[in-house]
Amino acid sequence: MLTQEQQAEIDELRSQTRPTLRAVSDGMEAHLYTAYPVLDHGFVRVIDYMGDDNAITQAARVSYGKGTKAVSNDEGLIRYLMRHWHSTPFEMCEVKFHVKLPVFVARQWIRHRTANVNEYSARYSILDREFYIPEPDQLAAQSVINNQGRGEALAGEEAARVLEYLKSDAARCYDHYEEMISQEGQQGLARELARMNLPANVYTQWYWKVDLHNLFHFLRLRADAHAQYEIRVYAEEMCKLVADWVPFAYAAFEDYRMGGATLSSKAIDCLRRMLKGEEVTQETSGMSKGEWREFMGVVQG
Amino acid sequence: MLTQEQQAEIDELRSQTRPTLRAVSDGMEAHLYTAYPVLDHGFVRVIDYMGDDNAITQAARVSYGKGTKAVSNDEGLIRYLMRHWHSTPFEMCEVKFHVKLPVFVARQWIRHRTANVNEYSARYSILDREFYIPEPDQLAAQSVINNQGRGEALAGEEAARVLEYLKSDAARCYDHYEEMISQEGQQGLARELARMNLPANVYTQWYWKVDLHNLFHFLRLRADAHAQYEIRVYAEEMCKLVADWVPFAYAAFEDYRMGGATLSSKAIDCLRRMLKGEEVTQETSGMSKGEWREFMGVVQG
Amino acid sequence: MLTQEQQAEIDELRSQTRPTLRAVSDGMEAHLYTAYPVLDHGFVRVIDYMGDDNAITQAARVSYGKGTKAVSNDEGLIRYLMRHWHSTPFEMCEVKFHVKLPVFVARQWIRHRTANVNEYSARYSILDREFYIPEPDQLAAQSVINNQGRGEALAGEEAARVLEYLKSDAARCYDHYEEMISQEGQQGLARELARMNLPANVYTQWYWKVDLHNLFHFLRLRADAHAQYEIRVYAEEMCKLVADWVPFAYAAFEDYRMGGATLSSKAIDCLRRMLKGEEVTQETSGMSKGEWREFMGVVQG
Amino acid sequence: MLTQEQQAEIDELRSQTRPTLRAVSDGMEAHLYTAYPVLDHGFVRVIDYMGDDNAITQAARVSYGKGTKAVSNDEGLIRYLMRHWHSTPFEMCEVKFHVKLPVFVARQWIRHRTANVNEYSARYSILDREFYIPEPDQLAAQSVINNQGRGEALAGEEAARVLEYLKSDAARCYDHYEEMISQEGQQGLARELARMNLPANVYTQWYWKVDLHNLFHFLRLRADAHAQYEIRVYAEEMCKLVADWVPFAYAAFEDYRMGGATLSSKAIDCLRRMLKGEEVTQETSGMSKGEWREFMGVVQG
Repeated sequence: MLTQEQQAEIDELRSQTRPTLRAVSDGMEAHLYTAYPVLDHGFVRVIDYMGDDNAITQAARVSYGKGTKAVSNDEGLIRYLMRHWHSTPFEMCEVKFHVKLPVFVARQWIRHRTANVNEYSARYSILDREFYIPEPDQLAAQSVINNQGRGEALAGEEAARVLEYLKSDAARCYDHYEEMISQEGQQGLARELARMNLPANVYTQWYWKVDLHNLFHFLRLRADAHAQYEIRVYAEEMCKLVADWVPFAYAAFEDYRMGGATLSSKAIDCLRRMLKGEEVTQETSGMSKGEWREFMGVVQG
Repeated sequence: MLTQEQQAEIDELRSQTRPTLRAVSDGMEAHLYTAYPVLDHGFVRVIDYMGDDNAITQAARVSYGKGTKAVSNDEGLIRYLMRHWHSTPFEMCEVKFHVKLPVFVARQWIRHRTANVNEYSARYSILDREFYIPEPDQLAAQSVINNQGRGEALAGEEAARVLEYLKSDAARCYDHYEEMISQEGQQGLARELARMNLPANVYTQWYWKVDLHNLFHFLRLRADAHAQYEIRVYAEEMCKLVADWVPFAYAAFEDYRMGGATLSSKAIDCLRRMLKGEEVTQETSGMSKGEWREFMGVVQG
Repeated sequence: MLTQEQQAEIDELRSQTRPTLRAVSDGMEAHLYTAYPVLDHGFVRVIDYMGDDNAITQAARVSYGKGTKAVSNDEGLIRYLMRHWHSTPFEMCEVKFHVKLPVFVARQWIRHRTANVNEYSARYSILDREFYIPEPDQLAAQSVINNQGRGEALAGEEAARVLEYLKSDAARCYDHYEEMISQEGQQGLARELARMNLPANVYTQWYWKVDLHNLFHFLRLRADAHAQYEIRVYAEEMCKLVADWVPFAYAAFEDYRMGGATLSSKAIDCLRRMLKGEEVTQETSGMSKGEWREFMGVVQG
Repeated sequence: MLTQEQQAEIDELRSQTRPTLRAVSDGMEAHLYTAYPVLDHGFVRVIDYMGDDNAITQAARVSYGKGTKAVSNDEGLIRYLMRHWHSTPFEMCEVKFHVKLPVFVARQWIRHRTANVNEYSARYSILDREFYIPEPDQLAAQSVINNQGRGEALAGEEAARVLEYLKSDAARCYDHYEEMISQEGQQGLARELARMNLPANVYTQWYWKVDLHNLFHFLRLRADAHAQYEIRVYAEEMCKLVADWVPFAYAAFEDYRMGGATLSSKAIDCLRRMLKGEEVTQETSGMSKGEWREFMGVVQG
């Protein structure tokens, strides 16, 4: 995953503390620069951060002035802000990640536009020979229930055949990529063109900088059970880092966002009828089958 | 490029006018829905638009009130706004494109974040067997001058070998993609996984909606001579559409942005010395070699 | 509210239909340009729009391809998108409002950053002598329960005194504003300075352009019962316009957003216990008093 | 400007350094928390920052890989990035300001949307009795040349009268604001309503967080000679802070943006003719009078 040279650079960076007057999160300092492995060749690591739990309440107190004194402690205030969707105080924290990830994951990720990105450029530079090949238990079949999800893992010959295709196609495409770029006695195809021969499981990397509010939005969607496995593992790793960076904010996020649910007015109506003892079925709920199934997931777990 | 079914749908859409009270740009109505071919299988077409030249001056006049009466005509006012970087009036126009483009072009394009995007999803659906294969005169060698650009086109055996690689790798990857997804008597790999086997010259498509100010920013960078050919041809096609949609705004954009140049304070200083008759060289300019070369490009053409 | 000249301009605009090939929303055409009164001197009117309910499902079908065929009709698909927070298809619709509103309302409004704005400039032009003076039943006392809300309306002498202050201070400040700007035989203070003497209930106006997703976000917060009355009346008027523009999307918004509620993981846990017949109190809920009160509001209405 | 309590808090914050592994800018550490006075009661101070000059080149090197080795040193690379409008590396730095400013300045400032803001809320809290009253030499007359600018300072009786109006109106409005909110034996008007009686020179404050690229954009517009004096003095103070934070980036910004100029294609054409010895006049230039005047400003200084 990391070259020796890269690991040495990280060790070097982690060995030198410097004095600062800024807010410091000890939880985050413990993680700085360290590359946490994700998938077979990927990683995620924090390069820099700004602010901590206290920066959130400080901003809220500027906004709401003496009004916020009623909520006496920081944890309570952060929970209040999260519950009432007061997002601007969370925007006061910022974090910068260095991520190595397959291109098809990067394509999903980039759809979150409210972030700053600097990606490795295959116009200027040559990509490494590194491809994501799923673990056998992640070789999932297409779901027969919905068009989006995954079913059980493939097995036996089918699994073997799939793995063989992924590996050999990646290898051959990369061989030709290399040959096209430079071969003795040839001019070499422009890099910006040659890259088009590489499949979407090739690894790229980028710096990704985002504020805490938008990061939470990303994590809610991508650390969710319905997210594609290959992006979810990145989001889960980032959740651990954020939990150590801003523990109060992360706990509120877990309670109100990750573990929470949104009910429609129809669902609220059904709920009230059920709590009064009425037996409500999908037919009498006014909901579609899909809505009812999701509603049952909330009330029955 | 288009299936018969798609062409019939476009013809149908273009055959039915409906009355509206909104501002109408006749120049743009003439293009609506029509797919203009780009590269070997791509296209760009306008699906909808909002506003015209007059919407720009109308917004400016709300902002600047009677102050804008001094600039008596619409064209002059639009030129004034463009020259002085008053960007908000241009944000009052909006346009929605439907674009079919290779994935490696889409990856560059999406870096412009201030736009709305709905892309064809290879998690849900199966991509078509369509790949960008460059024309022979676009099979450019890597530039020996800088890391970014292209040199001359490859020729002879090298060109033939490159084309053969691009075609056969795309074909084989797609064959395996299809096989992995569904093969008689097999479960079929999840689409969200199988797509990782497809190279970056496979075509995707999206709806891309943007306001005129941000579109001009995109066009300035991507219709520029330094942009990669494969995105530039899209930008150039869009320039023609915009020129017919908002002719005054586009003319101002051409004069002040596309055909304009930015000078540094050092460059301005040199210019003044030159106009006074002094002979200025790179050595006496205070500029680096790169800056001087670019400066000469401006003053000498 | 409107001058005769403005009303004549609106009548003129509403009298001329032109043919277009674009999507047309008949519901919105009926409202175009018409100024709907809000507060004592304000209004909101639609100047232009792009897209309709069909533009939303069209974009979704590009994204999800054949996957969306499962949800057979447009209304069902729009409900599905809203329920699962698929926001990008809603971004495909755009609307441009012309709003006249008091400055203190404008200051709240502008905090929604994902929109395009052109405001009347008091640097260039002279503001009119128009100030918001609340109706007697809106002269609310400070809430004694929380720092944000309003209590009962003031009455008697106190109400009279407040109205007298608001009216006479606005009048005097405007008199002096006028005098400072221009008085016979004087130079006149720069407008950009003189405006600082005007109180925050003076009216301004702007063009405000936004996509449907971000408009819904704005409406959810500002048409909410907790929003300040003076901005809520604008949001409510806009709700009516949107309901006629995109009826399916608006109905889904009402069900899932305006009438919906978000439950925390603690609240879901309590709910499940209650549905099993357990008596749950604030003490045994694990929630704070504030959370419990809000939870009771959801389950009991 | 600052209360004793506030100054004590700043002294406290500046007395405690803590160790960090993050990038540290010594130039910025020297300024952290300190409030620099602006106008009569305002200030600007830095609360937190992320990154330094090196963070910019680090991000550029991720993007451009080995391609950037050609530009060997950090200063040269930063100049190259600025010259070629490569904005994303500059987005990797972030800074958070605490600003106290008059409301009419805040209203201009907030039009820059790409930033995070937490403003003191007059719905929740009571504003202080502090108003901006211009220094006599800033009591400018309306420009007779254009609608936007200022002319000479007013003098004598007219100046005295203006100052008297500004002071007495502010005082009276604030007296009534206080009375309306709370008076013995009365209920008190809701704060969210009472605030509407305050003129636009009342002071507010906020936390404003922005990345370096967008900050430069703000500074180019607001530290410019054409910007209103009352916002320019804030921008100028911020320029000094940024110059110490990221010296290479700031120097490039000064050379290419603040001190630079943009020429239209017509202007470039004239320039070339002039350098060949041709005498070019406005009449033979193809430019409007306004454009020609601005062009002369560039070539003659």
